[in-house]
Amino acid sequence: MAQKPSIPKGTRDFSPIEVSKRNYIIAVMRKHFENYGYQPIETPSFENSDTLMGKYGEEGDRLIFKILNSGDYLDKVPFEELQTINYKQLTGKISEKALRYDLTVPFARYVVQHQNEIEFPFKRYQIQPVWRADRPQKGRFREFYQCDADVVGSTSLWQEVELVQLYDAVFADLGLKGVTIKINNRKILSGIAEVIGASDKLIDFTVALDKLDKIGEEGVKKEMLEKGISETALEKVQPLFNFTGTIDEKLAKLSALLSNSNEGMKGVEELRFICDNVSKLGLQQANLDLDVTLARGLNYYTGAIFEVSAPKEVAMGSIGGGGRYDDLTGIFGLKSMSGVGISFGLDRIYLVLEELNLFPETVSNTTQVLFLNYGEKEAFQAMKIITALRKENIKAELYPDPAKMDKQFKHAERRGIKYVVKETNDSICVLKNLQNGEQKEVSILELSSSLK
Amino acid sequence: MAQKPSIPKGTRDFSPIEVSKRNYIIAVMRKHFENYGYQPIETPSFENSDTLMGKYGEEGDRLIFKILNSGDYLDKVPFEELQTINYKQLTGKISEKALRYDLTVPFARYVVQHQNEIEFPFKRYQIQPVWRADRPQKGRFREFYQCDADVVGSTSLWQEVELVQLYDAVFADLGLKGVTIKINNRKILSGIAEVIGASDKLIDFTVALDKLDKIGEEGVKKEMLEKGISETALEKVQPLFNFTGTIDEKLAKLSALLSNSNEGMKGVEELRFICDNVSKLGLQQANLDLDVTLARGLNYYTGAIFEVSAPKEVAMGSIGGGGRYDDLTGIFGLKSMSGVGISFGLDRIYLVLEELNLFPETVSNTTQVLFLNYGEKEAFQAMKIITALRKENIKAELYPDPAKMDKQFKHAERRGIKYVVKETNDSICVLKNLQNGEQKEVSILELSSSLK
Repeated sequence: MAQKPSIPKGTRDFSPIEVSKRNYIIAVMRKHFENYGYQPIETPSFENSDTLMGKYGEEGDRLIFKILNSGDYLDKVPFEELQTINYKQLTGKISEKALRYDLTVPFARYVVQHQNEIEFPFKRYQIQPVWRADRPQKGRFREFYQCDADVVGSTSLWQEVELVQLYDAVFADLGLKGVTIKINNRKILSGIAEVIGASDKLIDFTVALDKLDKIGEEGVKKEMLEKGISETALEKVQPLFNFTGTIDEKLAKLSALLSNSNEGMKGVEELRFICDNVSKLGLQQANLDLDVTLARGLNYYTGAIFEVSAPKEVAMGSIGGGGRYDDLTGIFGLKSMSGVGISFGLDRIYLVLEELNLFPETVSNTTQVLFLNYGEKEAFQAMKIITALRKENIKAELYPDPAKMDKQFKHAERRGIKYVVKETNDSICVLKNLQNGEQKEVSILELSSSLK
Repeated sequence: MAQKPSIPKGTRDFSPIEVSKRNYIIAVMRKHFENYGYQPIETPSFENSDTLMGKYGEEGDRLIFKILNSGDYLDKVPFEELQTINYKQLTGKISEKALRYDLTVPFARYVVQHQNEIEFPFKRYQIQPVWRADRPQKGRFREFYQCDADVVGSTSLWQEVELVQLYDAVFADLGLKGVTIKINNRKILSGIAEVIGASDKLIDFTVALDKLDKIGEEGVKKEMLEKGISETALEKVQPLFNFTGTIDEKLAKLSALLSNSNEGMKGVEELRFICDNVSKLGLQQANLDLDVTLARGLNYYTGAIFEVSAPKEVAMGSIGGGGRYDDLTGIFGLKSMSGVGISFGLDRIYLVLEELNLFPETVSNTTQVLFLNYGEKEAFQAMKIITALRKENIKAELYPDPAKMDKQFKHAERRGIKYVVKETNDSICVLKNLQNGEQKEVSILELSSSLK
């Protein structure tokens, strides 16, 4: 029976040109990850459910794709139970595996499981798909790649310095100008909450502050007051509402504001070390900026927080983010393993490069030359030359059937193949450039250089 | 609560060196796939269940990993039903998606779904993981990569010729000598069954013949007789039991044997075309052999059948296979779309290269030089040079902490890093080769060339 074929919502097929463009971005990331000493690992697509469940909050648990046990999975569910059980309880009985939700938890599991084989500090990168049962919408998919670089086993701030450089290196190599790497520090946010006597309202405070761009100073203050933050507190943090200037100026303002908070001052020191060194070492394209409203990952980040904004001319928002987490592996029983890492948003980077027309022309892996097929004898002659060209890494093809010339030409055009060989013998061939219509006789010996 | 971390049975973590070796094989395949005009596509990890179910037989259906619907999946199962339902019926109600089982069915689905965007003949390759709930055993995993190259939309036998060359090109590039590409044709097997009057016993006949290596002529004949194939029939196929000689000699024997079968003679013609042209075009390393006992994929292959054997000195069996299927996309409603393709067994190829020590030394992506860390000032000096080296694509790192020298040296050794920079200023550094213990002063200007 014929079915109308489709794919699950939130998933995608990638055509040849899309795969080539994605692989181009991935290759650039891979190159710089490795230049920076990060090594690739891969983990299984599915993990034991108890590795994943409870690590992403209630919402996360709900969005994890669960895999049905194989065989008669009802066998172990007593009949009486089935009558009273709810779906959450049943899931625990009929599903033991789940698709990974991100690359961080599997990485933590990997580090703990392989701790005796790993030489620390361990710099790893990982580029693999993850799955989330989120409601699909523009730019949000149920299967998408994460591209992460993390280092565990050292608290050295040189790693933060290096991660800023790594972002810059990748985006510069991709030709992306005007990227802004925003940096903040969890300790700054804690310090602010502390000095205004609202440590218990850290989340409320940062959530409100994060809206400064959208709802303005008055809006933010109104929300903070509603959340129970006092007028006096708001006066103290007044500098934050007009937080402009160079990084040095911003650090000076924060220093003044946070002078009574040990933690806050620690945050200022950390930011100063990172920003000073990044500045002295220099970036190629990106701008580094200190953004005190940046509060992503506040549930797990304990030090630096990073977020990368696409160039202003494209309305894309964040194309990467990361931070430091003091206890990455504690959930799996290995304590005091500090980590810091960054992530690249492949799908959004793709859209940005597309919009700015930054994919190099060479990214397409299309065949360079198609030999027309006039019948068995001529096809054999062509195949002799094609076989030789391929050995020189020239992408060459024979049209498989002796079809009408018109059809064969159209095939080459539709596939964007630049050259067609019309006729050939052992010494000479007739080469036509479909882009400019030029046709010439080329000696077989020179054919490969003509095509390069 | 600390959990003892583990991964589901039949799945694997890949360490940095393992990922690098796998990526090396994949890069070689990719290069030749593209030289031959095959273009990459990717499909989602999970498909709608009805795309996959019923395509791989009952056993296959059982081995497909099913994904639980998200949310309250029991909501749609009436309470009364739950009391009488069996697990297979329940699966249909609580699971609508499943992990792909191979790359062929998703490819067929892709071709039908995108038929209006595709320019035929369409040559695609696809390198992605697949999942099977098989009992894990040595060399058999629940998650593994398939690496397929297929062309659809033409019946031209040049494609079979080219696929043999493609196998040869990949294995030659991997340095693998002594590979045998075995070829057969479904029409030969049908023809044999026809001329001995046992067309209805084609499968029994080929299953028995396939055991010739293991149970010998007498054993095969015994099994055939038991399956109801007559003594007279066995006399007719006597030549198959001593089927040696060159491909030409074998084709002559088959010609004589099959002269009364149109289909059989068609098979001989096809094989002759493929083998003649492969032979005239020449292979680099592999041997091509006609093997009439080869009967893989008899359920779907309709023309050529391929199988690749690893070199005899490694007991690995098949490292690839493929064939022609006349109706790839009919299951999804697009008729008369002939396809032919081959597959590479990544895991087995990996084991063969490992056993024969054929991975190039350069396959490891380990850092080339580690700068020792003596404290903030020296570290900054080192980072200046590291930043420059990385721009020249040299994999360089700073040890992140000013730890004891002994510890830093051990780190470099354990990670297989060849060079360590002990001291540096703006013009000169002290470079130590950890492999031979040599130490020398190198000018910064010459550092990158010393490291290359």
